[in-house]
Amino acid sequence: MDYQRVFNQAIDRLHAEGRYRVFIDILRNKGSFPNARCFAGHNGPKPITVWCSNDYLAMGQHPAVVTAMEDALHDVGAGSGGTRNIGGNTHYHIELEGELADLHGKQAALLFTSGYVSNDATLSTLAKILPGCIIFSDELNHASMIAGIRNSGCEKQVFRHNDLAHLEELLAAANPDAPKLIAFESVYSMDGDVAPIEAICDLSDKYNALTYIDEVHAVGMYGARGGGISERDAVADRVNIIEGTLGKAFGVMGGYIATDQTIVDVIRSYAPGFIFTTSLSPVLVAGALASVRHLKASSAERDGQQAAATRLKTMFADAGLPVMPSTTHIVPLMIGDPVKAKRISDILLAEYGVYVQPINYPTVPRGTERLRFTPGPAHDESMMRELTNALLEIWDRMELRLAA
Amino acid sequence: MDYQRVFNQAIDRLHAEGRYRVFIDILRNKGSFPNARCFAGHNGPKPITVWCSNDYLAMGQHPAVVTAMEDALHDVGAGSGGTRNIGGNTHYHIELEGELADLHGKQAALLFTSGYVSNDATLSTLAKILPGCIIFSDELNHASMIAGIRNSGCEKQVFRHNDLAHLEELLAAANPDAPKLIAFESVYSMDGDVAPIEAICDLSDKYNALTYIDEVHAVGMYGARGGGISERDAVADRVNIIEGTLGKAFGVMGGYIATDQTIVDVIRSYAPGFIFTTSLSPVLVAGALASVRHLKASSAERDGQQAAATRLKTMFADAGLPVMPSTTHIVPLMIGDPVKAKRISDILLAEYGVYVQPINYPTVPRGTERLRFTPGPAHDESMMRELTNALLEIWDRMELRLAA
Repeated sequence: MDYQRVFNQAIDRLHAEGRYRVFIDILRNKGSFPNARCFAGHNGPKPITVWCSNDYLAMGQHPAVVTAMEDALHDVGAGSGGTRNIGGNTHYHIELEGELADLHGKQAALLFTSGYVSNDATLSTLAKILPGCIIFSDELNHASMIAGIRNSGCEKQVFRHNDLAHLEELLAAANPDAPKLIAFESVYSMDGDVAPIEAICDLSDKYNALTYIDEVHAVGMYGARGGGISERDAVADRVNIIEGTLGKAFGVMGGYIATDQTIVDVIRSYAPGFIFTTSLSPVLVAGALASVRHLKASSAERDGQQAAATRLKTMFADAGLPVMPSTTHIVPLMIGDPVKAKRISDILLAEYGVYVQPINYPTVPRGTERLRFTPGPAHDESMMRELTNALLEIWDRMELRLAA
Repeated sequence: MDYQRVFNQAIDRLHAEGRYRVFIDILRNKGSFPNARCFAGHNGPKPITVWCSNDYLAMGQHPAVVTAMEDALHDVGAGSGGTRNIGGNTHYHIELEGELADLHGKQAALLFTSGYVSNDATLSTLAKILPGCIIFSDELNHASMIAGIRNSGCEKQVFRHNDLAHLEELLAAANPDAPKLIAFESVYSMDGDVAPIEAICDLSDKYNALTYIDEVHAVGMYGARGGGISERDAVADRVNIIEGTLGKAFGVMGGYIATDQTIVDVIRSYAPGFIFTTSLSPVLVAGALASVRHLKASSAERDGQQAAATRLKTMFADAGLPVMPSTTHIVPLMIGDPVKAKRISDILLAEYGVYVQPINYPTVPRGTERLRFTPGPAHDESMMRELTNALLEIWDRMELRLAA
């Protein structure tokens, strides 16, 4: 057994497909997001503009967040020092869980170290607690939901993306007595489309299924208080479990679920991914608490983001660039080839100081490689103009097609 | 299907077994660890002493760590804003990975959001990359390793704890051509005993197996530079993959592996738990970087911890308390009953302001429930005297047995 050979082959496959990933070495500049410094391939840092951050509302530099983190750091120190059960349950954790439960109008919430872990731990544990459970999963669900479903070992039925007829067909064909869970997202982050939450809940009522929604690309950004698409569409009370993140619009790090007290109690008691891990640093929790509270009361960031996204989509479309039909803040440009997507990204970074990461398989299906822009309230019109002009020059140079 | 009934039954089982977990609501006081405040069941916070933190060396309050985190917070903001591949790869991450690789004398290192995730992601991915892989796993391995092995779907052979003869028996019986991985820990955190690393590596050489060691309860604390038991025993170069945490002795949060460049490249390219998650906050990474650097150069914390552990073990043994035969900094008292363990813990907290969590199933096997003390450099002799006297009073009150 030649281990080195097998590992090298695995890496060679990535190079051959043009999807070997090079991580761009950056530091954002607090106070002037989306401005940042890039360290890769230069002598000393070079100024860049970040166009692909999931810190969608620039809350990672908000004074309320920074101050809260600084205060916590000086009050209680760096880490929590333990699992939630053994020494790592701080008062900040309790407060933030209360705040998140309130945000979604649920009885309780539970923090995890990441959104990935919240999906993996919750889905895998729920399906184990419900013997014979069948999970109905949207085909575009995030890798973390897929991991949780697979790790549960339960039966999985995949329905075509946002296809209610297909979902109902599968529900109707399943054993009526089996426990059922419908798992889906609100905003699909690589396309920017939105799930028909209310209609899915109608089906869950009809077939007595639980519902689990991943709102990581929506919390903080949609709804009057940032409760996500389920708040915007006034259907939060109809979804059993709402999963969210503290690492995107809230600008910090961590994940959570908001749901019934009983379900929180089950997950916190049975999920290894919750039980056996050091809890979130109180510094992060304090920052997230400030961020959630701020965005409950302020819509300026949400409004600014929506205006920026609309402006950039219009600008791209007017220029004939292949902007995909997103109905949200996500602005993807379809390239359809991993090598070209990477080349465009490389030119943008090296020649224009524009940082946008190429999105390739396995993040999106092969043949749908794209550039994904996430304009926020701090991306102004002149930045967008420069970006559009840069893209047009590269399109011309690489002889790519523009719409008529 | 009555979902509520099933969930309630799951919770009722925990109550019936006396192992329903109540999280103690605390805040540690930076600058005066192990002193903390407890919020549960009082009017306003009550002062307590924490005896069960995994912030073993109190690095969570070290000025170098706190200053580094504060500086990063002000320089680059709260969160990373993305995955390592998409906008979340900061210069701090690169620097810390270099520092950790150096700490363990390896070519490269890779950060994860937690130690749990590093075990789960690395083990599950390695075994998928090596078709037909058999993982040989110590029976007391941590839940996160068990999760990774199970999630890999590969064949698992469990060897009796630290039992070289049994491990060899299993290795010898396996297909000689199959890829093999031996997964074990250095310090077993609930018992405080240590693996025979060198002898395990001898077996791995003999049977051409890879070795994977979890050093989360050893990094920072053993070896001249805090490289763990593998550094102390001068065998780091013989172990293929060393896994560690930033959330225990380093006092912050996060996990990592240190290994060959090729293996790092494989894991960062193929592990969903690494790829599809927001990277560690740069604030945490900056703190961990300062902590690792400090503990590479300073042995005072390590020496202080060892002295404290020896003192407490001696004091417990002299008093006739059932201290388990730990050879490390972990000081467990065997109780053997979940209800009694919880009652002792409750009395210590309510009447003595001493916080030590009862350790019950599934963290330890049923019937071996215990109290687990983790004295550090900041636990002084008078604290230990008070603790021992409190335990003796409770032992007497509850009519528990003391050694002759």
